Amino acid sequence: MPSAQLARAIAALGSEIRPDILAACEQLYAPLHAAAIPAGISVVRDAVYGGGERNRLDVFTPAGAADRPVLLFVHGGGFVMGDKNLPGSPYYDNVGVWAARNGFVGVTMTYGLAPAARYPSGAVDIASALTWLHAHVGAQGGDPRTIVVIGQSAGAIHAATYAARADLWPDARIGIAGMILLSGVYDFDPEGQPPNVLAYFGDPAAAVAASPLAGLVAAGVPLLPAVAEWDPPLFHAQAMALVRALYARDGRMPHVAYLAGHNHLTEILHLNAAGTDDAILAGHITEFLRQITMPAASAPLAV
Amino acid sequence: MPSAQLARAIAALGSEIRPDILAACEQLYAPLHAAAIPAGISVVRDAVYGGGERNRLDVFTPAGAADRPVLLFVHGGGFVMGDKNLPGSPYYDNVGVWAARNGFVGVTMTYGLAPAARYPSGAVDIASALTWLHAHVGAQGGDPRTIVVIGQSAGAIHAATYAARADLWPDARIGIAGMILLSGVYDFDPEGQPPNVLAYFGDPAAAVAASPLAGLVAAGVPLLPAVAEWDPPLFHAQAMALVRALYARDGRMPHVAYLAGHNHLTEILHLNAAGTDDAILAGHITEFLRQITMPAASAPLAV
Repeated sequence: MPSAQLARAIAALGSEIRPDILAACEQLYAPLHAAAIPAGISVVRDAVYGGGERNRLDVFTPAGAADRPVLLFVHGGGFVMGDKNLPGSPYYDNVGVWAARNGFVGVTMTYGLAPAARYPSGAVDIASALTWLHAHVGAQGGDPRTIVVIGQSAGAIHAATYAARADLWPDARIGIAGMILLSGVYDFDPEGQPPNVLAYFGDPAAAVAASPLAGLVAAGVPLLPAVAEWDPPLFHAQAMALVRALYARDGRMPHVAYLAGHNHLTEILHLNAAGTDDAILAGHITEFLRQITMPAASAPLAV
Repeated sequence: MPSAQLARAIAALGSEIRPDILAACEQLYAPLHAAAIPAGISVVRDAVYGGGERNRLDVFTPAGAADRPVLLFVHGGGFVMGDKNLPGSPYYDNVGVWAARNGFVGVTMTYGLAPAARYPSGAVDIASALTWLHAHVGAQGGDPRTIVVIGQSAGAIHAATYAARADLWPDARIGIAGMILLSGVYDFDPEGQPPNVLAYFGDPAAAVAASPLAGLVAAGVPLLPAVAEWDPPLFHAQAMALVRALYARDGRMPHVAYLAGHNHLTEILHLNAAGTDDAILAGHITEFLRQITMPAASAPLAV
């Protein structure tokens, strides 16, 4: 979790998601991110993975990489905003740089936004990005057989929707090795959808019908759900719903990441921040990657 | 989680709890623990906290400590075996040393065993140990207002029982700041209790009646439930039951520790092991301590 000083500052921001609070979160961590891409990491910017103006992705590769697991980050922004990176901002290059610094190939993608882009556009864009990665990430040092998607907030919803909608998978295969879902919504409530959600889904009934929970769990891809301590109650409820569904499927606790001391946005902004010993998300990502990439163990002793 | 090599070795042991497997776990980590207590840590052995032969505890204090949070470790062993430490074994000095190395005062206690000791003897022993600590741990560098109990397996059951049974609390106060419950049982099933459980509770109905879940949740003390990836299904079910109960109480996900790559015993044996980057339990303990000891934040903005 964050240092005591950062944790106090984050706690003081409460759990509401509001423009001024999002800006405060970004300012809290911005000074802790290096202004430039570190030496030893090469970046390919704005690779075109589809026909839309926002169908662009950046690839972060550590020097000499070959066949490395690939982390594909899908940003949040409530369906209506957000980007893979903005000039002068460390976000979300921080995710790509962290991945490359830790021996992975990092990819940050952006995608079409509502109201121009409507459901299931976000999941379709992920499918297109995966098709691009399957064809091209090998040349960038990545192993296309080991792509892990990390979605945050609306990005987690797009990612979960991609997993749930087998009809959208390239060549009818999910094409990923795992999925990390930071503060997503998996089961929409017909009541109280804010305008940005309705801008993407059309109306509350469409959002409910699009809920990815059942399909996500049925897809069987390894999942790591995460929720931040200071996430609004909605995201706690949604993480719990996913944990319940995974327990019902497997009869065992899923790996779940409780991001102590963080809020809805700092849970991803803190990744790769310098001068803090906060490896909470980094640790979970590393563990999850090790779990899904570990060579099969010897057969367990009979139980 | 463990290194890839250790993780494979642990996975190969499966999830059954059996004497030969417990021994294999101990052997796996024993070479990674220093033979001697490191310089800068003083140990008081076998402090007498009660009238029973096994009412003994060890205190591990870092040099110059004053008012440090106190970690009280309650070992497992299925109610019928186990000890705070055995000659020639690094367990569970590893817990006390880890605590002291990380700025806490570590305490390892042992307690009466079944069949001589019967329910609620384990919880009574914890109450006595806490009474001793409240009186004496200040002189050992500890802060008696910040005692966190860490129970493992049967030790977690004794700890949970202590929290649930306000009638056992010294001076009618729980006297602890938090509780970390590694692979405990909180809600006993009337079916299939093994002989060691019956040796402590008497009969299945008594075990069911003694289930601490409701009282534990009602006590309101900060909790960190944990389960190991390779724990038997029983412990996954019990962790899930506690998570469900805490969610029902609070309307939010509790901090829960999923100990990836570990089994029922390595989840505690790995603590303080050298030559591995495995800080999975250490990270959770540190986060939990920071959460419960952090000075109150400014009032959150209105939400």
